[in-house]
Amino acid sequence: MNNFELYNPTKIIFGKGEIQKIKNEIPKDAKVLMLFGGGSIKKNGIYEQVKDALGEYDWMEFGGIPPNPEYEVLLKALEVIKKENITYLLAVGGGSVIDGTKFLSSASLYKGDEPWDILAKKIKTDKGMPFGTVLTLPATGSEMNSGAVVTRKETQEKYGMGGPGLFPQFSILDPSVVSSIPERQIANGLADSFTHVLEQYMTYPVDAKLQDRFAESILSSILETAPLIMEDTSDYKSAANFMWNCTMALNGLIQKGVPNDWAIHAIGHELTAFYGIDHARTLAILTKSHYTYNLKSKQAKLAQCAERVFGITEGDEQEKAEQCIEAIEEFFLSLGIGTSLSSYTKEYEGTAQKIAERFTERGWTGIGEHGKLTPNDVEQIVEMSY
Amino acid sequence: MNNFELYNPTKIIFGKGEIQKIKNEIPKDAKVLMLFGGGSIKKNGIYEQVKDALGEYDWMEFGGIPPNPEYEVLLKALEVIKKENITYLLAVGGGSVIDGTKFLSSASLYKGDEPWDILAKKIKTDKGMPFGTVLTLPATGSEMNSGAVVTRKETQEKYGMGGPGLFPQFSILDPSVVSSIPERQIANGLADSFTHVLEQYMTYPVDAKLQDRFAESILSSILETAPLIMEDTSDYKSAANFMWNCTMALNGLIQKGVPNDWAIHAIGHELTAFYGIDHARTLAILTKSHYTYNLKSKQAKLAQCAERVFGITEGDEQEKAEQCIEAIEEFFLSLGIGTSLSSYTKEYEGTAQKIAERFTERGWTGIGEHGKLTPNDVEQIVEMSY
Repeated sequence: MNNFELYNPTKIIFGKGEIQKIKNEIPKDAKVLMLFGGGSIKKNGIYEQVKDALGEYDWMEFGGIPPNPEYEVLLKALEVIKKENITYLLAVGGGSVIDGTKFLSSASLYKGDEPWDILAKKIKTDKGMPFGTVLTLPATGSEMNSGAVVTRKETQEKYGMGGPGLFPQFSILDPSVVSSIPERQIANGLADSFTHVLEQYMTYPVDAKLQDRFAESILSSILETAPLIMEDTSDYKSAANFMWNCTMALNGLIQKGVPNDWAIHAIGHELTAFYGIDHARTLAILTKSHYTYNLKSKQAKLAQCAERVFGITEGDEQEKAEQCIEAIEEFFLSLGIGTSLSSYTKEYEGTAQKIAERFTERGWTGIGEHGKLTPNDVEQIVEMSY
Repeated sequence: MNNFELYNPTKIIFGKGEIQKIKNEIPKDAKVLMLFGGGSIKKNGIYEQVKDALGEYDWMEFGGIPPNPEYEVLLKALEVIKKENITYLLAVGGGSVIDGTKFLSSASLYKGDEPWDILAKKIKTDKGMPFGTVLTLPATGSEMNSGAVVTRKETQEKYGMGGPGLFPQFSILDPSVVSSIPERQIANGLADSFTHVLEQYMTYPVDAKLQDRFAESILSSILETAPLIMEDTSDYKSAANFMWNCTMALNGLIQKGVPNDWAIHAIGHELTAFYGIDHARTLAILTKSHYTYNLKSKQAKLAQCAERVFGITEGDEQEKAEQCIEAIEEFFLSLGIGTSLSSYTKEYEGTAQKIAERFTERGWTGIGEHGKLTPNDVEQIVEMSY
């Protein structure tokens, strides 16, 4: 097991009817800005519940944060925060709204001239404006971690950011919200959380027995929950399992003490930046080719996953590893998620080269758990995913 | 899944050579009281490491906190804290030292006349004096939770306490410390952590898929690690797994959203109070009789554990459940831990009645996950354990 530090002060409030507890968590003298996305919360009743809970506060709202939260839109919210002397942010939404709120938490206390530097220069945020979240779309785990991803439309760039100052102070997870989520987004949440676990697990063994078993637990639980929640989003029990799986998949716990990969995400972000493909679907596009290209270095863990998660008992280690890759692809396909780039865009030619060039420009010369995947490797992985 | 709240702000610093990081965590202007037990830390080098890390601080020490931390001893430490205007506590030890430090954290800010009331009247601690820990004996999980157990020798009483103000600010877990722990205490740590998981898992199903799988992961990991660390305490890899298993077994995560039992602990504390039997061993004494007595209500989870943890595939649900109870007993015996009260004391006659009377006096008329075990049930469970 590698040395690690684990710190996660986010308070999770989980369950039916808990949105009203917002008022126990936000200081009474706060000036609150509620942030949300395209307005679905006004149709499914969540907006009203939040409004009721905020009853006695001095609060305002800022809607319209788009999927893959855009820097340009966030700058408008930042203006509101500064002009109105906002002191507390409340994200009501999925990963995009929460990630956007994290950027705003950081940017509103940022002393530099250009907030874009927080992203472009990877400035770690040690202190942000306090914020809480009401999760409406399980997927990214952003409700219980300190990372965020922000997109800049004009330059087709998508960058990560984070720091110990960016944990939500609280997150309310009411699984009832799942009943109104469209099937496409349920599928995305399942694929996204599944791949989050893979990025932290499918590397090489370091005899971290519990981390391995926890990761396998989340994978198994997602596989078990997926058909149930895809069949009936109003099944509360499955919604609760779906929601808790997604949070635990990326709240920092399973990544501690073990090598991490994150190459699929690094490459996938480019597919979203270029083509606007849903984040989760970019991951499904790249997983098979990444694991096949790096079969040798990932073989031991792929075979372990084959046995413990998919119950595959036949074959030697390499054969089990190959069957694991197939089983993962089958899972994505079972969700109605295409696993090749060509199923999303006809203009895929040249994508591999463009991404490799970008990585070279940025000096990303070694990604993956060994830090050894070059832009040339990345080019081949993307080509294999056409 | 039941509604739940999860909050755990303790920062874990895990790994070889990390004790020196104490100085990154304690404020420079703190006046520190270092607390420890019987002095084994002066033999195994940990005292020196802590002393080096505290180099520039204004600090004092208080040694001699005994196993099952005694109220009388803690009161002496409390005097020192008040007289010397201590502002930060540093527990260097196992569960007893850390639990004692939690009591002191609470008592040093307590406004009432009689600190014993914190225990006897179950006063929740919302704010305590800040403290950190250096764990030297993996077992109780106290390094990452907000609970403690304190004993009062003169009245043979053992009480729990806790509250959100009693999380360590940081805990340093260096698995190297395991190499100097006597076999008896390694065995205790394995049995203690195993039973902690059981208390949070062996109840009745509420379709909490991930909580179940996480609990099973810890049980499996303990079973896998036990023979390795019993064989060779200087095996760092196994020491690291042992240590992380113990922490995760009782840091609050797996108990959220599911029913909890804790009857074994409630009864076991009495065996320690009466006979001074090691805490972990009292749990091993009671587990089989408790599960056998309550077989029907626990059968589904016992059978699930049989299948997933012990690989038992033969028999119907009841038969699997019974085999699970046998397998758990075999595990305790494999550690050299006796599973009947008579293997610890010859004066066991009347114990069941004495414990039942105490529970009646305290008004504990319904313990266990259903809140339905009466003092009469407790009496029968203890009798079955003779």
